[in-house]
Amino acid sequence: MPSPREASASLQSKMDDVVNAVDKTIRKLLPETDLHEDRLYEAMRYSALSGGKRLRPFLVIHAANLFNVDPRRSKRVAAAIEFVHCYSLIHDDLPAMDNSDLRRGKPATHIAFDEATAILAGDALLALAFEILADPETHEDPRVRIELVARLAEAAGPHGLCGGQMLDLIGEVEEFDVGTISRMQRMKTGKLMAFACEAGAILGKSDEPHRKALINYAYDLGLAFQVTDDVLDVDADPEETGKPANQDEQSGKSTFVSAMGKEAAQMRAEMLVQQACRHLNMFSGRADTLKDLAEYVLQRRA
Amino acid sequence: MPSPREASASLQSKMDDVVNAVDKTIRKLLPETDLHEDRLYEAMRYSALSGGKRLRPFLVIHAANLFNVDPRRSKRVAAAIEFVHCYSLIHDDLPAMDNSDLRRGKPATHIAFDEATAILAGDALLALAFEILADPETHEDPRVRIELVARLAEAAGPHGLCGGQMLDLIGEVEEFDVGTISRMQRMKTGKLMAFACEAGAILGKSDEPHRKALINYAYDLGLAFQVTDDVLDVDADPEETGKPANQDEQSGKSTFVSAMGKEAAQMRAEMLVQQACRHLNMFSGRADTLKDLAEYVLQRRA
Repeated sequence: MPSPREASASLQSKMDDVVNAVDKTIRKLLPETDLHEDRLYEAMRYSALSGGKRLRPFLVIHAANLFNVDPRRSKRVAAAIEFVHCYSLIHDDLPAMDNSDLRRGKPATHIAFDEATAILAGDALLALAFEILADPETHEDPRVRIELVARLAEAAGPHGLCGGQMLDLIGEVEEFDVGTISRMQRMKTGKLMAFACEAGAILGKSDEPHRKALINYAYDLGLAFQVTDDVLDVDADPEETGKPANQDEQSGKSTFVSAMGKEAAQMRAEMLVQQACRHLNMFSGRADTLKDLAEYVLQRRA
Repeated sequence: MPSPREASASLQSKMDDVVNAVDKTIRKLLPETDLHEDRLYEAMRYSALSGGKRLRPFLVIHAANLFNVDPRRSKRVAAAIEFVHCYSLIHDDLPAMDNSDLRRGKPATHIAFDEATAILAGDALLALAFEILADPETHEDPRVRIELVARLAEAAGPHGLCGGQMLDLIGEVEEFDVGTISRMQRMKTGKLMAFACEAGAILGKSDEPHRKALINYAYDLGLAFQVTDDVLDVDADPEETGKPANQDEQSGKSTFVSAMGKEAAQMRAEMLVQQACRHLNMFSGRADTLKDLAEYVLQRRA
């Protein structure tokens, strides 16, 4: 059995592989153009190629690997989901929303360009994600493609990302209990992570129990990720996280830390990661990469 | 042969039918909720149920009628397309974009609610449109559903609505010639109208020539609509149009009127409507309702 240090080095190299593969796919999907409106594509590229851990693409690709899916397919779906993630970040950062000037240590899209371009770039990334999933290059079976579209739409719409962000805004003026915060985060982060894992299973035409296991893993992982995020917000180094420290408290946001305290939040995250990994036991050793990722989410510093 | 007056009365009653049918479908798709985030749904309903001519739903339903499509199907697609239209209006009206406080004579969504809610309501309407199209209730054949999704994504994304709106913003500081304005309007208005007609053909599993004819009709109609819009902007009564007069000139926008003068624009619109109707000749008399609509677009006062 490898030591934790070795496991982490091997995970890091797998994460690097995903970053490189997804960057390459995104560059192909968003080539430079000589169109009059290239500024729009430039803003889309700026956001989609600004680094980031590519957690969702990692989930798609490694969930798909469990079913031996052709990586050319899973990489396209990974890029589509990353586009939706980037769209949500662009819109969340807008002055009318979280008003964040920095994202991943760089100027947010509305700072690097302007607000109008940022709104449109977000809109365009969302629409493009559906265009990619609906393309026969993603999968030759229309039933697979339409299922990907249906699940992404659910994760991105009022029952997912948008509803979660609405709750987040309400949480700035209203104090939420842990139950409401959990529901908000499930919508805001969990659903898209769950879809990332489920997409791997859909591409692989998985049976229902394995698909469910991946979804449950992703929900627990997503929540653990968010709890850790709230903890990191309190005491992280802005140089490492790429965003100002203590932003949540200053904006009066309801977070897991504000609702249950830092230590209890940390413990909750650990418990969630253990639970996430248990869901994967039915894959026996084949899902170790996804288990390693869950450990990483807990230990990360940014 | 009915006199123009009778044709117009019969068209008006068909337009009223579409308005009622689509309102009913939208109310079912966006029911009131007791969710914590109901404010989001409220803003979506506010925008989607704020009146409007329902031109795109009319195109979907009457194009579908040419192929005897079950109205339960075409109404769902009509609502989905109207959601995309509403999303684009909400975002276009934002202070960072066209900064319009009024829409259809009522406060724009970001005025009636707030900017953050308006951005999210737009996002959510876009995602929900895809959710509706991907649902088996829209059509039992996944090939039909995925084709609807693919075409909508194209019409809504960077090659359609978003790219067109980006060009529109560029046109505020740059002077466009008629060719560039036409391309901008084709992206901003034409593509979604073309999809509305094409969707009827897709639902009806039409052959290629009839599908192409409907698409060509819609592009000409869309352009005629936009040229008329520019003419109306110059000399319309704000009480009839529900928006301030001469808005385009004041914002320095490139329009058909600024590029070719009012009279030439009016003539161009008439020529486009004739051309639009000629595409429908292959349907013989069965497409008279769509031809009547084209005449209406030319004669409308708002």
